Amino acid sequence: MKKAAVGIDIGGTSTIMGIVDTDGNCLYKKDIVTSEGKELNEFLRLLSDLIDEGTSFLNEEYRIAGIGIGAPNGNSKSGNIEFAPNLPWKGVLPVVEKFRGIRQERIILANDANAAAIGEMVYGGAKGMGDFLVITLGTGLGSGFVSNGRLITGHDGLAGELGHVTVNRNGRMCGCGRRGCLETYVSAKGIKRTLFKLLGHFPDIQSDLRSVSFENLEPPMITKAAEDGDKLAQMAFEYTGGLLGRKLADIVAITSPSAIFLMGGLANAGDLIISPAKKSMEINLLKVFKNKIEILPSSLKENPGVLGAAALVWGYNSC
Amino acid sequence: MKKAAVGIDIGGTSTIMGIVDTDGNCLYKKDIVTSEGKELNEFLRLLSDLIDEGTSFLNEEYRIAGIGIGAPNGNSKSGNIEFAPNLPWKGVLPVVEKFRGIRQERIILANDANAAAIGEMVYGGAKGMGDFLVITLGTGLGSGFVSNGRLITGHDGLAGELGHVTVNRNGRMCGCGRRGCLETYVSAKGIKRTLFKLLGHFPDIQSDLRSVSFENLEPPMITKAAEDGDKLAQMAFEYTGGLLGRKLADIVAITSPSAIFLMGGLANAGDLIISPAKKSMEINLLKVFKNKIEILPSSLKENPGVLGAAALVWGYNSC
Repeated sequence: MKKAAVGIDIGGTSTIMGIVDTDGNCLYKKDIVTSEGKELNEFLRLLSDLIDEGTSFLNEEYRIAGIGIGAPNGNSKSGNIEFAPNLPWKGVLPVVEKFRGIRQERIILANDANAAAIGEMVYGGAKGMGDFLVITLGTGLGSGFVSNGRLITGHDGLAGELGHVTVNRNGRMCGCGRRGCLETYVSAKGIKRTLFKLLGHFPDIQSDLRSVSFENLEPPMITKAAEDGDKLAQMAFEYTGGLLGRKLADIVAITSPSAIFLMGGLANAGDLIISPAKKSMEINLLKVFKNKIEILPSSLKENPGVLGAAALVWGYNSC
Repeated sequence: MKKAAVGIDIGGTSTIMGIVDTDGNCLYKKDIVTSEGKELNEFLRLLSDLIDEGTSFLNEEYRIAGIGIGAPNGNSKSGNIEFAPNLPWKGVLPVVEKFRGIRQERIILANDANAAAIGEMVYGGAKGMGDFLVITLGTGLGSGFVSNGRLITGHDGLAGELGHVTVNRNGRMCGCGRRGCLETYVSAKGIKRTLFKLLGHFPDIQSDLRSVSFENLEPPMITKAAEDGDKLAQMAFEYTGGLLGRKLADIVAITSPSAIFLMGGLANAGDLIISPAKKSMEINLLKVFKNKIEILPSSLKENPGVLGAAALVWGYNSC
């Protein structure tokens, strides 16, 4: 019997359950609408049913080695999801404890960016790396740091909040209540804010995006425009990547990773974001770190959330 | 037979060899002038002789479990001291390899700030902590980060350069060739620069330090003046601690330590530096980290360099 891991990717809208083998092949996958579980208990029972469906589909060929869960604000130390603003259930959710009441398998919870880092280490481009970081560029900016082959979780499980280091003390308002956090610049929402500031600042530069309202602009439209030669969209990427690179130079001085992986919507812009980030990082790096560190797109293209969650079963706390 | 560790603290001026038991008692200690060893080989032979002297002094009561070496620019991964500007020998020095040629014991090298962190974990206030950091405030600013009970060394052994994260892109010139590094503000040299800028900026505020030249001012004089109520000296500490606290808020978001220890000359100013640092850190922290993290003076008061080096034998790579 071969081994497989269950990976559960909990999101604000939908939750995906997948069964993944040790090579990163997704053998079975099914999703549910997250709010279908009116209460946490009901949601976990729905997930448990999905797992049973999956294992019976796979017949007796695979043994489930464990269940990994990636969730916004998932805390690997406490086993709780803590105050996740975009989930239907509020407060502190003792996910691991409750799930243990209905499942026999080993259960590991982590926040989604930390799961992404372990996914990259187990199945992706960070295979064999002991020191690297993964940055998820979604609506916000998440991050997972790996040092000595283990996640940096901090004493309370809350480490890895790169989105909330300060770029500019008097800068943009952040959802966290402070000003100038990195994610107010470097994220899908951040580049959209930048583009609109540029539209206002350079009224004479022609751009197709002038016909789109703030409400209607989706970040992939900025990527598309930049690829098509739109000057302002290109400037927005230069600015965003430049700020990211500057902060990465600070991060490198602290953790000296061998590579930095970018994942998520904005990362799909590829060189549009990576090239200015790399250039700005190199300019700002301390000499001993120059020309050593790669910024790479994640190599987990399909089901990154499920792969990351499943990878927790193999890779969390591996030394 | 009880176990003890040799700790060697290599400095630009003098090098101290100590034999330390598992409780942190220094059983034997002797120093030499570092430049007495004209070449690295000669220096290591002198150290080897000191170790033999020490072990024969201790008779057969103790068995030496290993030799730890703390040195500026000591790289734990390569075992080399790499381009240390203040040592008599230049370039890459294969200390561990050469020392292995003349000693039978296990040998571990680390940079001095990393050794300080392990010293704090094994013998000091960080005993039992898995996640913390130690900041050494000497001429410059060094740091050692511990996560999951292990040093963050990075892929190349060069991690922990908190002194070279950027506070102000257009700020003070740093010895590293860049501008605005944290250590140009928060270090013995940094606070001296701040004091002289304040002397120039507020010519009407009375201060005893107006009679001292830049060349003659030693940082402990600023501490003494601040303790005696000198307004400008107190402002210099407020400014220095404030900047440190702001950067610590960023660091906490990344590594979430349970405590931050300050060590070295400037740290001896105690609350003069800790109090504004703590205040500024709390103001700038992301909400989930507030009121959880202590900034503490190191509890290694005597021989911190030797204790840190010796601690490498017990604490390096302990999981």
